[in-house]
Amino acid sequence: MDFSIRAANVEDCKDIARMIRELAEYEKVADQVKVTQKDLEQDGFSKNPFFHGIVAEVPEQHRTKEGHTKIGYALYFYSYSSCAGRSIYMEDLYVMPEFRGKGIGKALMSKVAQLGLAAGCNQLNFTVLDWNKSSVDFYLSQGCVDVTDKIGYHCMRCEGEALEHLAQP
Amino acid sequence: MDFSIRAANVEDCKDIARMIRELAEYEKVADQVKVTQKDLEQDGFSKNPFFHGIVAEVPEQHRTKEGHTKIGYALYFYSYSSCAGRSIYMEDLYVMPEFRGKGIGKALMSKVAQLGLAAGCNQLNFTVLDWNKSSVDFYLSQGCVDVTDKIGYHCMRCEGEALEHLAQP
Repeated sequence: MDFSIRAANVEDCKDIARMIRELAEYEKVADQVKVTQKDLEQDGFSKNPFFHGIVAEVPEQHRTKEGHTKIGYALYFYSYSSCAGRSIYMEDLYVMPEFRGKGIGKALMSKVAQLGLAAGCNQLNFTVLDWNKSSVDFYLSQGCVDVTDKIGYHCMRCEGEALEHLAQP
Repeated sequence: MDFSIRAANVEDCKDIARMIRELAEYEKVADQVKVTQKDLEQDGFSKNPFFHGIVAEVPEQHRTKEGHTKIGYALYFYSYSSCAGRSIYMEDLYVMPEFRGKGIGKALMSKVAQLGLAAGCNQLNFTVLDWNKSSVDFYLSQGCVDVTDKIGYHCMRCEGEALEHLAQP
Protein backbone atom coordinates (compact mmCIF):
# COMPACT_ATOMS: atom_id res chain seq x y z
CA MET A 1 0.00 0.00 0.00
CA ASP A 2 1.19 3.49 -0.84
CA PHE A 3 1.72 5.78 2.09
CA SER A 4 3.80 8.83 2.86
CA ILE A 5 5.45 10.20 5.99
CA ARG A 6 5.81 13.95 6.44
CA ALA A 7 6.31 16.57 9.15
CA ALA A 8 3.09 17.43 10.95
CA ASN A 9 1.71 20.94 10.64
CA VAL A 10 -0.93 22.81 12.59
CA GLU A 11 -3.70 21.57 10.29
CA ASP A 12 -2.95 18.00 11.40
CA CYS A 13 -3.79 18.62 15.04
CA LYS A 14 -7.43 17.57 14.68
CA ASP A 15 -6.38 14.17 13.35
CA ILE A 16 -3.52 13.80 15.83
CA ALA A 17 -5.92 14.54 18.71
CA ARG A 18 -8.29 11.88 17.31
CA MET A 19 -5.48 9.32 17.08
CA ILE A 20 -4.18 10.18 20.57
CA ARG A 21 -7.64 9.23 21.85
CA GLU A 22 -7.62 6.02 19.80
CA LEU A 23 -4.19 5.09 21.15
CA ALA A 24 -5.22 5.88 24.72
CA GLU A 25 -8.25 3.62 24.38
CA TYR A 26 -6.00 0.83 23.13
CA GLU A 27 -3.62 1.46 26.05
CA LYS A 28 -6.56 1.57 28.50
CA VAL A 29 -5.72 5.09 29.66
CA ALA A 30 -8.49 6.95 27.79
CA ASP A 31 -9.70 8.54 31.04
CA GLN A 32 -6.30 10.22 31.43
CA VAL A 33 -6.24 12.09 28.11
CA LYS A 34 -6.54 15.80 28.79
CA VAL A 35 -4.79 17.00 25.62
CA THR A 36 -7.08 18.64 23.07
CA GLN A 37 -6.66 19.74 19.47
CA LYS A 38 -6.20 23.29 20.74
CA ASP A 39 -3.47 22.18 23.18
CA LEU A 40 -1.61 20.48 20.35
CA GLU A 41 -1.91 23.59 18.18
CA GLN A 42 -0.52 25.81 20.95
CA ASP A 43 2.12 23.46 22.38
CA GLY A 44 3.53 22.08 19.13
CA PHE A 45 3.21 24.92 16.65
CA SER A 46 4.16 28.13 18.41
CA LYS A 47 7.56 29.53 19.34
CA ASN A 48 9.63 27.08 21.42
CA PRO A 49 7.37 24.08 20.77
CA PHE A 50 7.17 21.36 23.40
CA PHE A 51 7.09 18.62 20.75
CA HIS A 52 7.34 17.93 17.04
CA GLY A 53 5.29 15.47 15.04
CA ILE A 54 5.19 13.40 11.88
CA VAL A 55 2.12 11.91 10.24
CA ALA A 56 1.52 8.96 7.92
CA GLU A 57 -0.96 9.50 5.11
CA VAL A 58 -2.57 7.18 2.57
CA PRO A 59 -4.01 8.22 -0.82
CA GLU A 60 -7.72 9.07 -1.07
CA GLN A 61 -8.61 5.65 -2.49
CA HIS A 62 -7.43 4.00 0.73
CA ARG A 63 -9.24 6.36 3.09
CA THR A 64 -11.12 4.80 6.00
CA LYS A 65 -14.90 4.48 5.91
CA GLU A 66 -15.00 7.57 8.15
CA GLY A 67 -12.98 9.41 5.50
CA HIS A 68 -9.60 9.55 7.25
CA THR A 69 -6.39 9.63 5.20
CA LYS A 70 -4.11 10.56 8.12
CA ILE A 71 -3.76 7.12 9.65
CA GLY A 72 -0.65 7.22 11.83
CA TYR A 73 1.59 9.58 13.72
CA ALA A 74 4.55 9.90 16.03
CA LEU A 75 5.41 12.75 18.38
CA TYR A 76 8.99 13.41 19.46
CA PHE A 77 11.16 15.96 21.23
CA TYR A 78 14.86 16.43 21.79
CA SER A 79 16.20 15.40 25.17
CA TYR A 80 19.46 14.69 26.95
CA SER A 81 21.19 11.83 28.69
CA SER A 82 23.98 12.70 31.09
CA CYS A 83 25.63 9.45 29.98
CA ALA A 84 25.08 9.49 26.23
CA GLY A 85 24.46 13.17 25.47
CA ARG A 86 22.01 14.35 22.83
CA SER A 87 18.96 12.12 22.61
CA ILE A 88 15.58 12.04 20.93
CA TYR A 89 12.46 10.91 22.74
CA MET A 90 9.56 9.33 20.89
CA GLU A 91 6.28 10.08 22.65
CA ASP A 92 3.67 7.89 20.94
CA LEU A 93 3.95 5.81 17.81
CA TYR A 94 0.54 4.93 16.43
CA VAL A 95 -0.94 3.39 13.31
CA MET A 96 -4.70 2.82 12.99
CA PRO A 97 -5.50 -0.92 13.39
CA GLU A 98 -6.65 -1.50 9.80
CA PHE A 99 -3.34 -0.15 8.46
CA ARG A 100 -1.00 -2.24 10.63
CA GLY A 101 1.37 -4.87 9.25
CA LYS A 102 2.24 -2.73 6.21
CA GLY A 103 5.48 -1.21 7.47
CA ILE A 104 3.92 2.14 8.38
CA GLY A 105 4.88 1.99 12.06
CA LYS A 106 8.40 0.97 11.13
CA ALA A 107 8.60 3.87 8.64
CA LEU A 108 7.43 6.38 11.27
CA MET A 109 9.96 5.11 13.79
CA SER A 110 12.68 5.09 11.15
CA LYS A 111 11.92 8.75 10.42
CA VAL A 112 12.27 9.64 14.10
CA ALA A 113 15.62 7.82 14.16
CA GLN A 114 16.75 9.76 11.06
CA LEU A 115 15.74 13.07 12.63
CA GLY A 116 17.61 12.15 15.79
CA LEU A 117 20.80 11.18 14.00
CA ALA A 118 20.62 14.35 11.89
CA ALA A 119 20.55 16.39 15.11
CA GLY A 120 23.54 14.54 16.53
CA CYS A 121 21.54 12.34 18.90
CA ASN A 122 23.10 9.13 20.21
CA GLN A 123 19.95 7.57 21.64
CA LEU A 124 16.28 7.12 20.82
CA ASN A 125 14.27 6.65 23.99
CA PHE A 126 10.61 5.84 24.53
CA THR A 127 8.34 3.84 26.81
CA VAL A 128 6.13 0.85 26.15
CA LEU A 129 3.47 -0.85 28.28
CA ASP A 130 4.77 -4.26 29.30
CA TRP A 131 1.47 -6.04 28.52
CA ASN A 132 1.54 -4.71 24.95
CA LYS A 133 3.46 -7.77 23.76
CA SER A 134 3.18 -7.10 20.02
CA SER A 135 4.73 -3.65 20.46
CA VAL A 136 7.42 -4.93 22.84
CA ASP A 137 8.32 -7.70 20.37
CA PHE A 138 8.43 -5.23 17.48
CA TYR A 139 10.76 -2.88 19.35
CA LEU A 140 13.04 -5.71 20.49
CA SER A 141 13.17 -7.01 16.89
CA GLN A 142 14.50 -3.57 15.90
CA GLY A 143 17.42 -3.91 18.31
CA CYS A 144 15.91 -1.77 21.07
CA VAL A 145 16.83 -2.60 24.66
CA ASP A 146 14.35 -2.73 27.57
CA VAL A 147 16.38 -0.76 30.11
CA THR A 148 13.76 -1.33 32.79
CA ASP A 149 14.32 -5.08 32.52
CA LYS A 150 18.03 -4.80 31.89
CA ILE A 151 19.21 -2.33 34.54
CA GLY A 152 16.12 -1.54 36.59
CA TYR A 153 15.13 1.93 35.41
CA HIS A 154 11.66 2.83 36.66
CA CYS A 155 9.59 5.73 35.32
CA MET A 156 8.53 8.14 38.06
CA ARG A 157 5.94 10.90 37.81
CA CYS A 158 4.88 13.80 39.97
CA GLU A 159 1.68 15.66 39.09
CA GLY A 160 -1.36 17.44 40.48
CA GLU A 161 -1.29 18.35 44.15
CA ALA A 162 1.99 16.51 44.70
CA LEU A 163 3.66 18.69 42.07
CA GLU A 164 2.18 21.88 43.52
CA HIS A 165 3.35 20.84 46.97
CA LEU A 166 6.83 19.92 45.77
CA ALA A 167 7.19 23.36 44.20
CA GLN A 168 6.64 25.09 47.58
CA PRO A 169 10.02 26.53 48.66
CA MET B 1 23.89 24.61 56.43
CA ASP B 2 23.64 27.54 54.06
CA PHE B 3 23.31 26.67 50.42
CA SER B 4 21.93 28.31 47.32
CA ILE B 5 20.30 27.02 44.15
CA ARG B 6 20.77 28.92 40.90
CA ALA B 7 20.59 28.42 37.15
CA ALA B 8 23.69 26.76 35.74
CA ASN B 9 25.88 28.70 33.34
CA VAL B 10 28.62 27.62 30.99
CA GLU B 11 31.29 28.06 33.69
CA ASP B 12 29.59 25.32 35.74
CA CYS B 13 30.13 22.62 33.11
CA LYS B 14 33.44 21.43 34.58
CA ASP B 15 31.80 20.78 37.95
CA ILE B 16 28.67 19.30 36.39
CA ALA B 17 30.82 16.89 34.34
CA ARG B 18 32.65 15.91 37.55
CA MET B 19 29.37 15.29 39.39
CA ILE B 20 27.92 13.35 36.43
CA ARG B 21 30.89 10.98 36.78
CA GLU B 22 30.35 10.75 40.56
CA LEU B 23 26.66 9.95 40.07
CA ALA B 24 27.45 7.37 37.39
CA GLU B 25 29.88 5.62 39.72
CA TYR B 26 27.21 5.51 42.41
CA GLU B 27 24.73 4.15 39.86
CA LYS B 28 27.31 1.61 38.61
CA VAL B 29 27.18 2.92 35.04
CA ALA B 30 30.49 4.83 35.04
CA ASP B 31 31.65 2.90 31.96
CA GLN B 32 28.70 4.36 30.02
CA VAL B 33 29.47 8.04 30.57
CA LYS B 34 30.52 9.57 27.28
CA VAL B 35 29.49 13.15 28.06
CA THR B 36 32.38 15.56 28.60
CA GLN B 37 32.63 19.12 29.88
CA LYS B 38 32.86 20.27 26.25
CA ASP B 39 29.70 18.35 25.32
CA LEU B 40 27.84 20.03 28.16
CA GLU B 41 29.08 23.45 27.08
CA GLN B 42 27.95 22.87 23.50
CA ASP B 43 24.70 21.02 24.16
CA GLY B 44 23.39 23.09 27.05
CA PHE B 45 24.65 26.60 26.36
CA SER B 46 24.30 27.28 22.67
CA LYS B 47 21.22 28.15 20.60
CA ASN B 48 18.42 25.59 21.02
CA PRO B 49 19.96 23.86 24.03
CA PHE B 50 19.22 20.17 24.60
CA PHE B 51 18.96 20.67 28.38
CA HIS B 52 19.00 23.24 31.15
CA GLY B 53 20.63 22.93 34.53
CA ILE B 54 20.62 24.18 38.09
CA VAL B 55 23.42 23.88 40.63
CA ALA B 56 23.59 23.87 44.42
CA GLU B 57 26.44 25.81 45.99
CA VAL B 58 27.75 26.13 49.54
CA PRO B 59 29.78 29.04 50.97
CA GLU B 60 33.58 28.85 50.87
CA GLN B 61 33.79 27.81 54.53
CA HIS B 62 31.89 24.61 53.73
CA ARG B 63 33.93 23.68 50.64
CA THR B 64 35.05 20.07 50.32
CA LYS B 65 38.63 19.07 51.04
CA GLU B 66 39.18 19.05 47.27
CA GLY B 67 37.96 22.66 47.21
CA HIS B 68 34.52 22.17 45.65
CA THR B 69 31.69 24.56 46.45
CA LYS B 70 29.36 23.34 43.69
CA ILE B 71 28.06 20.25 45.42
CA GLY B 72 24.82 19.30 43.67
CA TYR B 73 22.99 19.70 40.39
CA ALA B 74 19.93 18.77 38.39
CA LEU B 75 19.49 18.76 34.62
CA TYR B 76 16.07 19.13 33.03
CA PHE B 77 14.37 19.70 29.72
CA TYR B 78 10.83 20.39 28.58
CA SER B 79 8.92 17.46 27.16
CA TYR B 80 5.39 16.43 26.26
CA SER B 81 2.85 13.82 27.25
CA SER B 82 0.08 13.09 24.78
CA CYS B 83 -2.13 12.47 27.82
CA ALA B 84 -1.16 15.33 30.12
CA GLY B 85 0.39 17.86 27.76
CA ARG B 86 3.33 20.05 28.73
CA SER B 87 5.79 18.24 30.98
CA ILE B 88 9.22 18.74 32.44
CA TYR B 89 11.75 15.93 32.60
CA MET B 90 14.40 15.79 35.30
CA GLU B 91 17.54 14.07 34.03
CA ASP B 92 19.73 13.56 37.08
CA LEU B 93 19.36 14.88 40.59
CA TYR B 94 22.60 14.66 42.51
CA VAL B 95 24.04 15.89 45.79
CA MET B 96 27.56 14.94 46.88
CA PRO B 97 27.44 12.29 49.65
CA GLU B 98 28.83 14.52 52.44
CA PHE B 99 26.08 17.11 51.80
CA ARG B 100 23.10 14.75 51.85
CA GLY B 101 20.39 14.87 54.48
CA LYS B 102 20.36 18.69 54.54
CA GLY B 103 17.44 19.33 52.21
CA ILE B 104 19.60 20.19 49.20
CA GLY B 105 18.23 17.43 46.97
CA LYS B 106 14.70 18.40 47.93
CA ALA B 107 15.48 22.06 47.15
CA LEU B 108 16.89 21.16 43.72
CA MET B 109 13.85 19.05 42.88
CA SER B 110 11.52 21.75 44.19
CA LYS B 111 13.19 24.24 41.85
CA VAL B 112 12.64 21.94 38.87
CA ALA B 113 8.98 21.63 39.88
CA GLN B 114 8.69 25.45 40.11
CA LEU B 115 10.25 25.88 36.67
CA GLY B 116 7.87 23.30 35.26
CA LEU B 117 4.78 24.90 36.73
CA ALA B 118 5.93 28.32 35.55
CA ALA B 119 6.11 26.94 32.00
CA GLY B 120 2.61 25.47 32.24
CA CYS B 121 3.77 21.87 32.76
CA ASN B 122 1.37 19.38 34.30
CA GLN B 123 3.88 16.61 35.01
CA LEU B 124 7.41 16.16 36.28
CA ASN B 125 8.88 12.93 34.96
CA PHE B 126 12.18 11.18 35.69
CA THR B 127 13.62 7.72 36.16
CA VAL B 128 15.14 6.01 39.16
CA LEU B 129 17.06 2.74 39.49
CA ASP B 130 14.90 0.28 41.39
CA TRP B 131 17.75 -0.90 43.64
CA ASN B 132 18.42 2.70 44.78
CA LYS B 133 15.98 2.32 47.68
CA SER B 134 16.85 5.56 49.47
CA SER B 135 16.10 7.56 46.31
CA VAL B 136 12.93 5.59 45.55
CA ASP B 137 11.71 6.15 49.12
CA PHE B 138 12.52 9.86 48.93
CA TYR B 139 10.58 10.30 45.69
CA LEU B 140 7.60 8.30 46.96
CA SER B 141 7.60 10.42 50.13
CA GLN B 142 7.21 13.49 47.90
CA GLY B 143 4.04 12.06 46.35
CA CYS B 144 5.67 10.76 43.15
CA VAL B 145 4.17 7.68 41.52
CA ASP B 146 6.20 4.76 40.15
CA VAL B 147 4.40 4.36 36.82
CA THR B 148 6.48 1.32 35.93
CA ASP B 149 5.11 -0.50 38.98
CA LYS B 150 1.66 1.03 38.72
CA ILE B 151 0.80 0.66 35.04
CA GLY B 152 3.72 -1.23 33.53
CA TYR B 153 5.62 1.46 31.64
CA HIS B 154 9.03 0.18 30.56
CA CYS B 155 11.86 2.41 29.33
CA MET B 156 13.12 1.39 25.90
CA ARG B 157 16.30 2.57 24.20
CA CYS B 158 17.75 2.29 20.72
CA GLU B 159 21.37 3.31 20.17
CA GLY B 160 24.55 2.54 18.27
CA GLU B 161 24.28 0.19 15.31
CA ALA B 162 20.62 -0.54 16.04
CA LEU B 163 19.81 3.18 15.74
CA GLU B 164 21.81 3.52 12.53
CA HIS B 165 20.04 0.47 11.11
CA LEU B 166 16.60 1.70 12.17
CA ALA B 167 17.24 4.99 10.37
CA GLN B 168 17.77 3.23 7.03
CA PRO B 169 14.74 3.96 4.83
